[in-house]
Amino acid sequence: MALWTSRTFRGLASLNLRPCVLKTSSSISTRALSSLKVNQQRLWDSLHHTAQWGDSKDGGVKRLTLTPEDKAVREWFVDHVQEYGAKPTVDQMGSIFAVRPGENNDIPPIGIGSHLDTQPAGGRYDGILGVHAGIEVLRVLQLNNHRTYAPLAVINWTNEEGARFNTGMLASGVWSGQVEQDFAYALKDADGKVFRDELQSIGFLGQAEASHKTNPLSAHFEYHIEQGPILEEDNRSIGIVTGVQGMGWLIVTVTGRSQHCGTTPMDRRSDALLTASRMISRVNEIALEFGGMTTVGVINSEPQSPGTIPGKVTFSIDFCHLDNARMDRMVAQTREECGKIAEKHSTSVDIKQIWRSPGVVFDDDCVDCVRSAAIDRFGKDGCIELPAGAGHDSVNTSYICPTAMVFIPSKDGISHHPSEYSSPEDW
Amino acid sequence: MALWTSRTFRGLASLNLRPCVLKTSSSISTRALSSLKVNQQRLWDSLHHTAQWGDSKDGGVKRLTLTPEDKAVREWFVDHVQEYGAKPTVDQMGSIFAVRPGENNDIPPIGIGSHLDTQPAGGRYDGILGVHAGIEVLRVLQLNNHRTYAPLAVINWTNEEGARFNTGMLASGVWSGQVEQDFAYALKDADGKVFRDELQSIGFLGQAEASHKTNPLSAHFEYHIEQGPILEEDNRSIGIVTGVQGMGWLIVTVTGRSQHCGTTPMDRRSDALLTASRMISRVNEIALEFGGMTTVGVINSEPQSPGTIPGKVTFSIDFCHLDNARMDRMVAQTREECGKIAEKHSTSVDIKQIWRSPGVVFDDDCVDCVRSAAIDRFGKDGCIELPAGAGHDSVNTSYICPTAMVFIPSKDGISHHPSEYSSPEDW
Repeated sequence: MALWTSRTFRGLASLNLRPCVLKTSSSISTRALSSLKVNQQRLWDSLHHTAQWGDSKDGGVKRLTLTPEDKAVREWFVDHVQEYGAKPTVDQMGSIFAVRPGENNDIPPIGIGSHLDTQPAGGRYDGILGVHAGIEVLRVLQLNNHRTYAPLAVINWTNEEGARFNTGMLASGVWSGQVEQDFAYALKDADGKVFRDELQSIGFLGQAEASHKTNPLSAHFEYHIEQGPILEEDNRSIGIVTGVQGMGWLIVTVTGRSQHCGTTPMDRRSDALLTASRMISRVNEIALEFGGMTTVGVINSEPQSPGTIPGKVTFSIDFCHLDNARMDRMVAQTREECGKIAEKHSTSVDIKQIWRSPGVVFDDDCVDCVRSAAIDRFGKDGCIELPAGAGHDSVNTSYICPTAMVFIPSKDGISHHPSEYSSPEDW
Repeated sequence: MALWTSRTFRGLASLNLRPCVLKTSSSISTRALSSLKVNQQRLWDSLHHTAQWGDSKDGGVKRLTLTPEDKAVREWFVDHVQEYGAKPTVDQMGSIFAVRPGENNDIPPIGIGSHLDTQPAGGRYDGILGVHAGIEVLRVLQLNNHRTYAPLAVINWTNEEGARFNTGMLASGVWSGQVEQDFAYALKDADGKVFRDELQSIGFLGQAEASHKTNPLSAHFEYHIEQGPILEEDNRSIGIVTGVQGMGWLIVTVTGRSQHCGTTPMDRRSDALLTASRMISRVNEIALEFGGMTTVGVINSEPQSPGTIPGKVTFSIDFCHLDNARMDRMVAQTREECGKIAEKHSTSVDIKQIWRSPGVVFDDDCVDCVRSAAIDRFGKDGCIELPAGAGHDSVNTSYICPTAMVFIPSKDGISHHPSEYSSPEDW
């Protein structure tokens, strides 16, 4: 975190290309910034203190958005940031912007945002660490009586996970104009409870418009666990996140003919699972050929009898690519080859694209801030540039304002699981 | 069926190699046998009359063993065979032997057996047609006042399907000494009901020992629908069944590592489903190389999330081969190659063989009876020699006495389904 409170802010001094000029105050020397250090133990204590709200007793946290647990941690956040000179504002989507004034308060704040909600069987760090890191920045600044050039906003975005209300990065989506607020308000959870009602019932239906137009940011930085194995396996301390890859889902349905397997010769079959297996194998090869990623995560076969040739198989394909055009060509190739494989196996195939999120490239200057600060602290070998594989609120902010992300190692690459862990030394 | 009541019995005249000599009476001329013809309409009516017990109203029959429906059809069987001069005997496994005396009653009867129980969503013909065909033979003989050389036994074997009490070909297994009677008696259905209690409660716990030693047969013939597509697709009227292929089941468990699919690079994965897909593809090729058959009918993947790399996949392999030694080599090769595929994909694999039924070759003389009769009636092009792909009671009788089977076409190769159909013309 030291790099965030010193080097990153120093790096921002070079940014004056945008309408919202990001500058460190001319009165702040590099030496003054370098003296600002986060307190590892305090940050650790703060994060684990809030894990009481949703503690799943297995090392993880279950804190679905707009539940009583979410209400409790939000109230802690609102109380806490005020101790460090920040004024919390809740918008109409329940996102909380804790703004600590700077020297020039006509400049929109620089945001440090992430989320406090979790997956149903979530860990203690995904999203949560990013918000706590922002609060620690406030603490360091306040305790050092340090005033920044522009105001800072530590943000808790509502419903990033999309685990309870099934659209991820929801509030940042509304803020950035990617998602209609009415659509968000009408979302229902599995019990039929409506987003807006739940937002109101926990007391976080705010007054401020959930819009970058009336509540702008000069930039958005997000500090996050990697959720993948690269940093740990390559022994890197920092991931300089260059953007977020494009991604989407296909649902593939293969239809064959369900027959008695002992009595149907091999050359007279229409085996949906054999067909699907050959598709899954080929889908993997196509991803490698295109420099992208694909994953078949769900498979269902009918009629699930060991003595019967499967007549129908459905499987999902998650696809990712850094280059949107290449991603689309990869998907087209996948469709085409699955069709050929089906034909060769006397089966038919239907492929539906049910989701597509184009990739984004983060702002050059913001990424450069992260890069120069990270290299300064850990050396070139301690850092690696990489895209984010998962969606984050920073995808939405990147459409509106200069954005970048910083990753720290995830133990065993595990996330969305109670065993998710990132060491305080890496923080 | 004409071929059965004339040519088959003629063919049996040549069999005197066995302790139980099978001969037609020297007093029966070929001409006399040739005049005996089954009545197509009567056989059709008889079969569909009994479909009332378990009529599933969708064209099929659900008549699980030892249920009230099974009781009803058994009572009809017992009553009916007596009209045609046969005396029913129920053994301790509930199998009914309806014996019509011949000229030489010191010779054990020649059996015509199959089963009246069905699958839960079964058809009207599997097993049932074989028993009704036997009854029709009794009718023809009785109405023509014809006495055979040896006695005839029309047999309804108990629990061939193994659908309610989970061991197929159960009563013929006990009769032939392949299955312990105490094991069979202790079997429980899904509701915990015990086989012996249920047998007693429907009134079919007989006195006769369920043993070939005290209740022997001179031979066993079984007339059955093919349950596969070969006869129909090749436009053949009769399948001369040369034996029953060996078969068995493997359960394969592939263990990888469940990870976030957007954040885990392709070359650092341990993808259980990709591994399984490549195994399934290869398992198919190995079967073709060995001239056998394999089918993956069941697949289960965890955690079944489109955004998560599957960490565990379990699938079944049904394997069949006519040659037991080659079947075992095919299974060994399958195990070996699955191990290699797992290693290549950084996963591990565990393979368990949970069932193996060795193949049997039917008695040369009995098969020759069927062959000569079939060719005589339909010509060489009307017949095809083939193995049975599924298990039948004839597998068990073949261990004890000369055995053969006759297949007739199954519409679309479908069986174990209400749409199962074989035309009365083919009967």
